[in-house]
Amino acid sequence: MKFGVCYYPEHWPESRWAVDARMMREAGLEIVRIAEFAWAKMEPADGQFDWGWLDQAIDTLAAAGLQIILGTPTAAPPAWLTRTHLDILRWEKDGRSRNHGTRRHTCPNSPTYHDFSRRLVTAMVERYGGRTAAVRDGRIIGWQIDNEFGGGHTGRCYCDNCAAAFRRWLQDRYGSIDALNEAWGTIFWSQTYTDWAQINPPRDDIDKANPSHELDYFRFSSDSIVAYQQMQLDIIRPQASGQFVTHNFMGLYLDLNQFDLAAPLDFVTWDAYYTGFPERWGPLLLPPGEAPAAYAYDVGDPLILGMAHDLMRGLKQRPFWVMEQQAGHINWSSVNAGVRRGTPRLWCWHALAAGAETIVFFRWRATLFAHEQYHSGLLRHDGSPDVGWHDLHRMQVERALLDHIAAEPLQAPVALLFDYDDLWALQIQPHRRDFHCLRHLFVYYRALQQMGIMVDLVSGQADLSAYRLVIAPTAHTATAERAAHLQQYVEQGGTLLLGVRSGFKTASNLVTDQPLPGTLRDLAGVKVLDWQVLPDGIGWDLATAVPHLTGPATYWVENLEPETAYVLARYESGMAALTENWVGNGRVLYLGFYPTAAQAGALLTHLAHQIGLKPLPPLPAGLLAYRRGHDTVLLNFTDEPLTAVVDGRSVVVNGRDISVHSTG
Amino acid sequence: MKFGVCYYPEHWPESRWAVDARMMREAGLEIVRIAEFAWAKMEPADGQFDWGWLDQAIDTLAAAGLQIILGTPTAAPPAWLTRTHLDILRWEKDGRSRNHGTRRHTCPNSPTYHDFSRRLVTAMVERYGGRTAAVRDGRIIGWQIDNEFGGGHTGRCYCDNCAAAFRRWLQDRYGSIDALNEAWGTIFWSQTYTDWAQINPPRDDIDKANPSHELDYFRFSSDSIVAYQQMQLDIIRPQASGQFVTHNFMGLYLDLNQFDLAAPLDFVTWDAYYTGFPERWGPLLLPPGEAPAAYAYDVGDPLILGMAHDLMRGLKQRPFWVMEQQAGHINWSSVNAGVRRGTPRLWCWHALAAGAETIVFFRWRATLFAHEQYHSGLLRHDGSPDVGWHDLHRMQVERALLDHIAAEPLQAPVALLFDYDDLWALQIQPHRRDFHCLRHLFVYYRALQQMGIMVDLVSGQADLSAYRLVIAPTAHTATAERAAHLQQYVEQGGTLLLGVRSGFKTASNLVTDQPLPGTLRDLAGVKVLDWQVLPDGIGWDLATAVPHLTGPATYWVENLEPETAYVLARYESGMAALTENWVGNGRVLYLGFYPTAAQAGALLTHLAHQIGLKPLPPLPAGLLAYRRGHDTVLLNFTDEPLTAVVDGRSVVVNGRDISVHSTG
Amino acid sequence: MKFGVCYYPEHWPESRWAVDARMMREAGLEIVRIAEFAWAKMEPADGQFDWGWLDQAIDTLAAAGLQIILGTPTAAPPAWLTRTHLDILRWEKDGRSRNHGTRRHTCPNSPTYHDFSRRLVTAMVERYGGRTAAVRDGRIIGWQIDNEFGGGHTGRCYCDNCAAAFRRWLQDRYGSIDALNEAWGTIFWSQTYTDWAQINPPRDDIDKANPSHELDYFRFSSDSIVAYQQMQLDIIRPQASGQFVTHNFMGLYLDLNQFDLAAPLDFVTWDAYYTGFPERWGPLLLPPGEAPAAYAYDVGDPLILGMAHDLMRGLKQRPFWVMEQQAGHINWSSVNAGVRRGTPRLWCWHALAAGAETIVFFRWRATLFAHEQYHSGLLRHDGSPDVGWHDLHRMQVERALLDHIAAEPLQAPVALLFDYDDLWALQIQPHRRDFHCLRHLFVYYRALQQMGIMVDLVSGQADLSAYRLVIAPTAHTATAERAAHLQQYVEQGGTLLLGVRSGFKTASNLVTDQPLPGTLRDLAGVKVLDWQVLPDGIGWDLATAVPHLTGPATYWVENLEPETAYVLARYESGMAALTENWVGNGRVLYLGFYPTAAQAGALLTHLAHQIGLKPLPPLPAGLLAYRRGHDTVLLNFTDEPLTAVVDGRSVVVNGRDISVHSTG
Repeated sequence: MKFGVCYYPEHWPESRWAVDARMMREAGLEIVRIAEFAWAKMEPADGQFDWGWLDQAIDTLAAAGLQIILGTPTAAPPAWLTRTHLDILRWEKDGRSRNHGTRRHTCPNSPTYHDFSRRLVTAMVERYGGRTAAVRDGRIIGWQIDNEFGGGHTGRCYCDNCAAAFRRWLQDRYGSIDALNEAWGTIFWSQTYTDWAQINPPRDDIDKANPSHELDYFRFSSDSIVAYQQMQLDIIRPQASGQFVTHNFMGLYLDLNQFDLAAPLDFVTWDAYYTGFPERWGPLLLPPGEAPAAYAYDVGDPLILGMAHDLMRGLKQRPFWVMEQQAGHINWSSVNAGVRRGTPRLWCWHALAAGAETIVFFRWRATLFAHEQYHSGLLRHDGSPDVGWHDLHRMQVERALLDHIAAEPLQAPVALLFDYDDLWALQIQPHRRDFHCLRHLFVYYRALQQMGIMVDLVSGQADLSAYRLVIAPTAHTATAERAAHLQQYVEQGGTLLLGVRSGFKTASNLVTDQPLPGTLRDLAGVKVLDWQVLPDGIGWDLATAVPHLTGPATYWVENLEPETAYVLARYESGMAALTENWVGNGRVLYLGFYPTAAQAGALLTHLAHQIGLKPLPPLPAGLLAYRRGHDTVLLNFTDEPLTAVVDGRSVVVNGRDISVHSTG
Repeated sequence: MKFGVCYYPEHWPESRWAVDARMMREAGLEIVRIAEFAWAKMEPADGQFDWGWLDQAIDTLAAAGLQIILGTPTAAPPAWLTRTHLDILRWEKDGRSRNHGTRRHTCPNSPTYHDFSRRLVTAMVERYGGRTAAVRDGRIIGWQIDNEFGGGHTGRCYCDNCAAAFRRWLQDRYGSIDALNEAWGTIFWSQTYTDWAQINPPRDDIDKANPSHELDYFRFSSDSIVAYQQMQLDIIRPQASGQFVTHNFMGLYLDLNQFDLAAPLDFVTWDAYYTGFPERWGPLLLPPGEAPAAYAYDVGDPLILGMAHDLMRGLKQRPFWVMEQQAGHINWSSVNAGVRRGTPRLWCWHALAAGAETIVFFRWRATLFAHEQYHSGLLRHDGSPDVGWHDLHRMQVERALLDHIAAEPLQAPVALLFDYDDLWALQIQPHRRDFHCLRHLFVYYRALQQMGIMVDLVSGQADLSAYRLVIAPTAHTATAERAAHLQQYVEQGGTLLLGVRSGFKTASNLVTDQPLPGTLRDLAGVKVLDWQVLPDGIGWDLATAVPHLTGPATYWVENLEPETAYVLARYESGMAALTENWVGNGRVLYLGFYPTAAQAGALLTHLAHQIGLKPLPPLPAGLLAYRRGHDTVLLNFTDEPLTAVVDGRSVVVNGRDISVHSTG
Repeated sequence: MKFGVCYYPEHWPESRWAVDARMMREAGLEIVRIAEFAWAKMEPADGQFDWGWLDQAIDTLAAAGLQIILGTPTAAPPAWLTRTHLDILRWEKDGRSRNHGTRRHTCPNSPTYHDFSRRLVTAMVERYGGRTAAVRDGRIIGWQIDNEFGGGHTGRCYCDNCAAAFRRWLQDRYGSIDALNEAWGTIFWSQTYTDWAQINPPRDDIDKANPSHELDYFRFSSDSIVAYQQMQLDIIRPQASGQFVTHNFMGLYLDLNQFDLAAPLDFVTWDAYYTGFPERWGPLLLPPGEAPAAYAYDVGDPLILGMAHDLMRGLKQRPFWVMEQQAGHINWSSVNAGVRRGTPRLWCWHALAAGAETIVFFRWRATLFAHEQYHSGLLRHDGSPDVGWHDLHRMQVERALLDHIAAEPLQAPVALLFDYDDLWALQIQPHRRDFHCLRHLFVYYRALQQMGIMVDLVSGQADLSAYRLVIAPTAHTATAERAAHLQQYVEQGGTLLLGVRSGFKTASNLVTDQPLPGTLRDLAGVKVLDWQVLPDGIGWDLATAVPHLTGPATYWVENLEPETAYVLARYESGMAALTENWVGNGRVLYLGFYPTAAQAGALLTHLAHQIGLKPLPPLPAGLLAYRRGHDTVLLNFTDEPLTAVVDGRSVVVNGRDISVHSTG
């Protein structure tokens, strides 16, 4: 368990660097990330590199005993570059080019951008890669490629470079224009294409695009960024022996397939901003009309952050780093409340419990200029300590306990399937405005957290063998491969819970012409006779032996016809609402309605007891429990003491504090 | 009374066509509409026509005994066409071109679009027109030109083709640039034009356009689409002896003068979507803050739909068809609730009672691809029957009653004047944000419906002689011709009710310099001394002998000075609020305030008794009554039984059911 | 004290001019403003001037005894000009050009626009300037340059002319590109510029611009309009001896530094629209969630209007004119309520009491055409008198009293500092969404009004020596010069109240690296240890001896460390919340939290008693008091009688009426 910090030496006088380095070490920091936006400083004019300042900064920091992570600065191309090569600039969906004056205004498919990025990264890695790092005491430990791919709604570009690349991507995928027409159903409204050149990105000059067109563009856009990262990775890897390579992810970010982006990296790191996330993700996660929790005004919503941690862990099914840990107030929410002492510590404990191996604070000192002036750091603008600094000091005295927990094994018994194809297909066609894949997942996520059961958010392709329970709230796009993968898991003894709208779509986003759940029908042993939206206030009563699973079923309901399954719950009409089908050594439940939190809780409690997950008695709101080996880490996000019952004993946790409960 | 269905053979394997045709006949369907979006299939490349598949489809359907309506597919030009002729594409008000990938992305003034449309329609009608139809058993009964002109907010194009056509249109209208300057009042803010070429469409690069400029562009845009339809009509008519020609209208659609569009057609058909309309039109029809009625969650608001039926009937003052009858859930509202059995039947009865001669369901089977995947059909995606199918079967057993009602005479005693010039002038300058012509009409419409009095929505030019009462809530743009037309109606014994803001504008959208109601002043026998908006919460008390007509007068009030009229109601100030003027054999009432529903009800009840319309005792909310000959069709849109009093007798109608009450 | 009216002879038949002139005189009007939008009439084609009609209009009006103000009509360039010189057109932030068809669609940096404006104004002033005015009986008394600079959100243009001019402006300001990079902190995110040509306006193709870039563009935009006005002024002044030159300002308009615009003019005039302002400015002035006052439905919010009066008076620290006085209903708010008799009179009295020397009504008669058809005038469309006319007549009989008050001395004892740099810097980075400079000022403004204490809104550079109390709610951008200016005021015996976020920024919008309040630290004798936003519902209790100053402190709080100051209030934590520092003969208070209205009232009451301002007992809501010499003008904006206590005596003022109370 280590602490680090993000630092921008180029923002401060050289004379200050040694002071800062010394202060960092005094605060217990061991790692420093630098260089990530400094392209204009590294290459002040086309092809003219200046490494002197960076050599000096590295020397100064390393001399103080800090380990260094270098960011490639490609998220911020210099003005001399973008002003002369306009094809580098990203276009919005409305066809308007972005421009110099901020970051991430680049197109991942621009050949020019690739060329200049390649030249820069090559020069950088030749100077600071593993083969040369010995010169600098071996203290450059790793690389962060670029910064927050897709950040600030930049995950998709609609430029002409992208149009050309999209056509090539489609040719690779479909082979012939006839196959594409078939796959997209372009016969509808005479959309039929007779030449690849007729196909554009789904810019907003199309009033509403074909959903197959749209979904393929989402995939293509994600692949484009993954390929851009791979270009850098291919340069860095061969020269970076002994150095890790990673990227800093963005939690619940939706516009990019983060599983794909994570695959070639050594591990995942991410940027955790507690007080900004509820405003950003709450509206997608919570039931319509429910505000994010504010257990204490400055802590953020720990379930929303926790879900992000659990996705970051699930990306590679292994521990992660926090590369940017919020240290105090931020500058990008609507209110940007102050943060009290004790809160950054609570966040660090949360990250650690959820699987963070290293926590790097953002940022060392509040910047005096430009866009992020109002974002706090460990130090204030005038160099005096801010809250994060004080909490960091406090954590030095509990370092042994932190290290102990970090060393405990970490294996979640439950997997929640999070599939970008499903997500995107349902974003494109929610059918009811407030249906959101993430919201559906969160119903189950929240129920599991209340029982203190850890859960990984993993992709549909992940190895599921380690999980006792797999939940697929909406296995929406269901190819035969996906069905087979789930079938294998079940046959080997797993329990699979499938939800509404499963099996609806083909790989190219057409509707199956088979009875639902389509390719999953045999596995579920059930046929969906019909489905429908119930508007607010309308519901169907339920009859079931599952304890506490009571009606009404609302929002989205499906009438089920069991084929090989038997019925666990029925609607008032007598139609089946929940079925269970035994397959091999395992079983599949199909839940024919979109559950409320209480309904999901009742069903999961029932299942958890059945399969021996030993849920905790319901935790009070604001209290989280993470089970690591023999330890249970309890985190209280409220201002008042709360009590959990662990191993039959009551454990009181103080407000905005943590407690570790060890068994045996 | 016939039933039909919309079918897209090109979406399904040829092998399926005969199966579908047989199933249609089994369901009681007699008519099928096809071909309307199949341009790319008919003309897969420039000038290369392929009729084989369509011949085959027609043969298969006709062989099963179905009568066929052919749609011209011009709403969906193929990619090969729009990608090579960019001048076909419609421009938004912001000057941005629309693009391929959806429908209706065309400019009605593009010469290229006219040329290609003309060639296609000519080829189509030569093959399938009346002179050749005998070859196909005479079963192609008619033509639908294009599809939903203006649909999806495409009623106005702002491209350079349109700019040129607009200048020609203005030259025709005004003759000289001086006359235009005079007519538009361009002396204001130095807008004066010195050359026709200086005049553009009122794109949104004008912060706020001159209201005369804007109104003329609205008229021009409407005329452009009417002319485009006429171009097709001129091709079809000579070759289509024995076949009708129509278009499918969109109910309360506002951006197009539907009276003009209807004039040259044989009859009007329209597309009736009950569960989507309240969300779309409710905010324009209902008092601000009032939500559309939801008597039962899946029925829609029958008053909003009823008003659309009554406008469709009024377009040509004769019965109409429903060309697209909603069969189950739709895909374009925000929630898209499911639809229960019994509801489609109720909708069909409603349409029939209101004057529909034929009802064509949309669509046969839910489509597997593209934009409308989530729109239901009579069959589900997997080919199994959906609710509409079941209701269609149920109606087969009541076919005799349906036919009986369809044959009954239909004559509404009341006309509501619906004038596009008034509507547009008030949209452009509502003066208070929530003033809307349609909302003002609806106040009276709703009051009449509650009395079970049928009403036609007709244009200002319509023959009014058959109506006992004519209501002009706001006869806003009042030329001398319009005044004379109304005068003639009144002199021959009619009763005319005029409302606020009448007589305000000239033909070119200037304010009259005469005392209000301008050209209508002699007819009304009253002068409007002043008018004003009263903000919410402010009102003026009333004194009147009209039963139940109580204050306060709110929202918009006018102080009246009777000239030849006498006073029926006064404000608390003693100023006249409602007057009556006898002219010839008839009379004109001028109501000097914008009434609430209750005030309109009181006044109309009073008038209805005076002129012998025999209103029903107030119908309960959710119950509608249509009087056809000796029959009264009662429709209950709630889930509970409701009671009407007809001819002094109580009639109970079950929830979501109908009842026919016959007199004498 | 004089009354005038705005008139557009070009809108009416020449035969009507004499009638109108006679009616104006009968109504008591002495001044008429004409010509301001008549460019197309003056110069109907390029270089062809037509003065005949204007000569005639002037002759006719002067003959009736009216004094004339001529507006230069440059706000409305003719179509022949803008259609041939597209570089005249203003661009929006999105890079889209504005267009002909309205007004103010011009770029202040267009050389072409300057050239054509110069030629026109030169010709106009040669004909109607002071040297020639004797010809016309000396009745052309002054000039209004252009009309409402910046009106309709036109204060900033983003075109290529502006881009070039901005680069020159930056070169003048910073000298070298290195200095600019330093001043803007462009090292952040590699924004560094290497060539002036790389710098664009901060168009919206930059996702979020550097705040230094943005602030400089706001300044540059303001300077551009000031320079455009100066160009006209330089033409008019030499030829206009005996004539004044002014411009009609827009009250609380924010996009233009009105102090700079006012500086070279003879006096300020402004356009006062009572019923539109609350909707426009209320959301910026009032606490979030509080609706503007509606003491009576047609009067507007007198505090919002009063604040505008007090700013207009503060622009040059002298009396002003109302150049457009609302006469009845307007046409640009969302409801545009009618206005009752008595209300225009109340507005005139309000303007007079606040320092208006002349009141010019807008407009003579409601226009029959174009954009402002629904805006009232003294006459209605049909030429009959409207409410303003009646009120004007009523004021003729109280002319002696009006003149008496107008002659009374006017000196506010309190100054509120209103600084455009502060305003803009905080608009760009409010940190919490609802922080607004104007809202912060209004807290104090409202408290002072409730005490009947007059206040000038003056710039940071104004002469402060006449004020007993100076309030700087947020002296945000604090250069050394600004600190010295305030220090001088205090040393000479003044009392200065400083608020939160003071001293935060440098001149180029960087954050100071010194402890806050930065350059103001010595003056305040206090150091801000930390600052933070408290979200709604969170607050810190207060302990203080200041009467009625009770907690909690909310919204924005700062912990203070007194250095030379002593503590007047503390938070519950014991940290200082309000301090006082004696400097020379005066003192500085630093208030470490953003006060509520009640807290501001308590503090200001305390201070007012201390420094002998003799506040009135709290005035009831809706009652305003202005002290002019020995008189107190009381204005009641409600419909009910209200009572004030003046000089210890109760004075009852009737609803929508005024009362003048004289002392001694």
